Amino acid sequence: MADQRFFRLRGPFSLAELASLADARLEQGDASKQIRDVAALDAAAEGHVTFLDNPKYTDQAKHTKADACVIRQDMIECLPSGVAALITDEPYRGYARIAAAFYPDAAEPNPLQPALAGIAVGAVIDPDAEIGDDCQIASGAVIEVGARIGARCRVGANATIGRGVVLGSDCVIGPGVTLTHCLIGSRVVIHAGARIGQDGFGFALGPKGHVKVPQIGRVVIEDDVEIGANSTIDRGSGPDTLIGRGCKIDNLVMIAHNVRLGPGCIVVAQTGISGSTEIGQGSVLAAQVGIAGHLKIGAGTQFAARSGVMKDVAAGQTMGGAPAIPMKQWLRQVVALNRLIKRRGVEE
Amino acid sequence: MADQRFFRLRGPFSLAELASLADARLEQGDASKQIRDVAALDAAAEGHVTFLDNPKYTDQAKHTKADACVIRQDMIECLPSGVAALITDEPYRGYARIAAAFYPDAAEPNPLQPALAGIAVGAVIDPDAEIGDDCQIASGAVIEVGARIGARCRVGANATIGRGVVLGSDCVIGPGVTLTHCLIGSRVVIHAGARIGQDGFGFALGPKGHVKVPQIGRVVIEDDVEIGANSTIDRGSGPDTLIGRGCKIDNLVMIAHNVRLGPGCIVVAQTGISGSTEIGQGSVLAAQVGIAGHLKIGAGTQFAARSGVMKDVAAGQTMGGAPAIPMKQWLRQVVALNRLIKRRGVEE
Amino acid sequence: MADQRFFRLRGPFSLAELASLADARLEQGDASKQIRDVAALDAAAEGHVTFLDNPKYTDQAKHTKADACVIRQDMIECLPSGVAALITDEPYRGYARIAAAFYPDAAEPNPLQPALAGIAVGAVIDPDAEIGDDCQIASGAVIEVGARIGARCRVGANATIGRGVVLGSDCVIGPGVTLTHCLIGSRVVIHAGARIGQDGFGFALGPKGHVKVPQIGRVVIEDDVEIGANSTIDRGSGPDTLIGRGCKIDNLVMIAHNVRLGPGCIVVAQTGISGSTEIGQGSVLAAQVGIAGHLKIGAGTQFAARSGVMKDVAAGQTMGGAPAIPMKQWLRQVVALNRLIKRRGVEE
Repeated sequence: MADQRFFRLRGPFSLAELASLADARLEQGDASKQIRDVAALDAAAEGHVTFLDNPKYTDQAKHTKADACVIRQDMIECLPSGVAALITDEPYRGYARIAAAFYPDAAEPNPLQPALAGIAVGAVIDPDAEIGDDCQIASGAVIEVGARIGARCRVGANATIGRGVVLGSDCVIGPGVTLTHCLIGSRVVIHAGARIGQDGFGFALGPKGHVKVPQIGRVVIEDDVEIGANSTIDRGSGPDTLIGRGCKIDNLVMIAHNVRLGPGCIVVAQTGISGSTEIGQGSVLAAQVGIAGHLKIGAGTQFAARSGVMKDVAAGQTMGGAPAIPMKQWLRQVVALNRLIKRRGVEE
Repeated sequence: MADQRFFRLRGPFSLAELASLADARLEQGDASKQIRDVAALDAAAEGHVTFLDNPKYTDQAKHTKADACVIRQDMIECLPSGVAALITDEPYRGYARIAAAFYPDAAEPNPLQPALAGIAVGAVIDPDAEIGDDCQIASGAVIEVGARIGARCRVGANATIGRGVVLGSDCVIGPGVTLTHCLIGSRVVIHAGARIGQDGFGFALGPKGHVKVPQIGRVVIEDDVEIGANSTIDRGSGPDTLIGRGCKIDNLVMIAHNVRLGPGCIVVAQTGISGSTEIGQGSVLAAQVGIAGHLKIGAGTQFAARSGVMKDVAAGQTMGGAPAIPMKQWLRQVVALNRLIKRRGVEE
Repeated sequence: MADQRFFRLRGPFSLAELASLADARLEQGDASKQIRDVAALDAAAEGHVTFLDNPKYTDQAKHTKADACVIRQDMIECLPSGVAALITDEPYRGYARIAAAFYPDAAEPNPLQPALAGIAVGAVIDPDAEIGDDCQIASGAVIEVGARIGARCRVGANATIGRGVVLGSDCVIGPGVTLTHCLIGSRVVIHAGARIGQDGFGFALGPKGHVKVPQIGRVVIEDDVEIGANSTIDRGSGPDTLIGRGCKIDNLVMIAHNVRLGPGCIVVAQTGISGSTEIGQGSVLAAQVGIAGHLKIGAGTQFAARSGVMKDVAAGQTMGGAPAIPMKQWLRQVVALNRLIKRRGVEE
């Protein structure tokens, strides 16, 4: 069971309820049986539901002590008899929904002040800011003139929301976040210390001194986006910087001015995207990737960790290396390099 | 026009005034004509001034609807007749100055509390700190004993300025910034969440435990420096860490103890410079570069994005790759690697 | 002498006292002689103690004006006559202990409010939080319900310590830090802006939208750990994220959910460790390293800066490159690549 100091356990839920939550079909089990917690395959005990998603863990599944398992139809035979099967094509997704039912707080990234109703005494809210119904604003948060916060938003301690910033409903803004010059949709999660909307890195360079170019665009963040801790997204220079609906961005990511991320992109930790580059819908950038400026990356592209992208990439490609090349070529490059050393070794 | 919630539009300005601002010569236009906004070549309309800097956009220039364009003499023929030309050798620099006149707030990176005069009720200022004339100190800012803040500085919400820190005049300190053990010049801009002056990463390593080495230097930041969001600059171990006049540092950059940056360097996002390295005046480090410790990098060197620098570099070189080598060699290395794969492909 | 605005000089100390602090043997000196400050070899003057650790600086040692030097037995002859020798096998470690005696504040990374006794007026502490004896809690710090802070902890301005978080004794939490869902040992130092305990980057990906997977583990940080400015450590998905005793982590480091660092690891700036990877005791990860997820890295491994690690690594290896290979092979790879260019140059 998760640590009760941090996570409140709900439930129990019947197998029928879990099947419904996971959009799964119950097999080999009593629909009314009560399940009281989630656990990993090897940690699960009586009364627990677990899941099998990765074939690598089939052996663990064979010995699980769980009462139920979210699983694909074609892997069902590895479950011990007596373990109820919750069958779905997407077990990880099903597990996610079940775990969120048991631990609703854990799916909310900022449960700093669960007891808090309304606005903390130490929050500083401009009289000309609009705060929606049922918002929670923690101590030390500063909300400036003209900001508009939708219903049920939660703003963490010492966060600052600048003049004119707009948030939709049900957003979670972590502690210490800074938002300026941005328009944010609904159900957006921004983790602690992220910086959104500061002016982009625009200078007219020269030996007489570098002159700052005013950045008069905004950051527009669509619905259901999540942005990781200490990440930075600069506002546009004139056009906006755009983060499309449902994008998930990890910690310490840098997104420069005028970048446009299509819907549903995944950007893993410490990746950087240079100015004015466009990334197509559903692309995946693994950790520590770097993408140069003014590029067009097609929809559904995937970049291996540490890719260094210097050219446009057509839709649907999988790339790796620096400079990034198609994944198959990159893997051959790695092999070729290793051979080169061996041959040299013989020659020397 | 930029979003009025975030940017206040000033003006209009006559073409004569714009020419003066941009240090340009007016041609093909009526000096008294009033211009009311800036816009990009393809977005501009009547009453707008635009600019052409990159030959790549010559086609857009041919169809611009702007009333005026900042441009070099040798590109002037691509402007439609009737478009006034503001001629200068540095159009981007000229545009920067004009845009700053139309949008003075945008050139100031911390306009969180434009209505604020003086010191917010929620700011916490030690009685033994000195605050210069006409400063703005936002709510939640904490200024410690012995700190000295020059005239017209603006300190953002929840920023902390430690004991004894000195700021010159006209500095802008973003929300949530931490300054300790540092001396800062005038007109310095530090964006949200930057951390300046914490002790460097100095340990005497050993199997009995790693012992912290006291860091008794400072960070010295000269005039006209800009430091990006969530960047970190550690104080020196005994010598100071030095950021020379006019350096521009982007987001999420790491500068270790005892580093010395000469005047006018550009350091792009996510770059890291290891301890005690010296970078000569006017060098440019593109994004995600890494530079090892105790190196000497000559003046005017340029590093391509993701360069990994392991040796000293003489002045004026352009480098790329990891380990970094002269750019020409690096480009040939990339070509050679690609050929290697192809040949291997035939062999296999 | 260090800048008195930031560092308070203690002492003087006799050579006998310094020998005791450094666990060194005094030779060539008067044990009662008073020493009043530390300085580098080339900056030292009368009344100063210095150290020689790196043979590279032997020439500086020959001309030092210091009155005493912490040094190894086998280098003692390079000291000018009259310089007292404090002999130890670990001079840098000895110097660290002596410098900490002269400058005790400098060894404490958060001396923002040295005059502060107890809890600042502007701190916000939940009545159901427990604060140990002799703690210092700075202005704007927010401490939530159920948090337990051990004796003599110092919490910086505008830091937030979430519900149920536990800290041992003698911890230093920098300004603007966020702690949630974590259990922290004693003598732990967390620098400004670090984010500990936010939920890991777990999503069930899919074209219908990415579903957040609740993260119900914690971050467990053992005794004597140090974590750098603006670094991020995500909490576990079910298992905990674990930082072993005595680990030292630099700035802007990313540690993902479920990672386990053995005791005494060194992680240099801008390195990232992906989810569920285990790093053995005493390993050293230089700057900008990336380690993929679900790997096992043996004890005492060393990674050169910018290594990209994609496979398990056995204990005691030294690795470099991306993908990382044993250091010797990597160095040969670099040489082979350079030759390849030269040969191609001849052919073309």
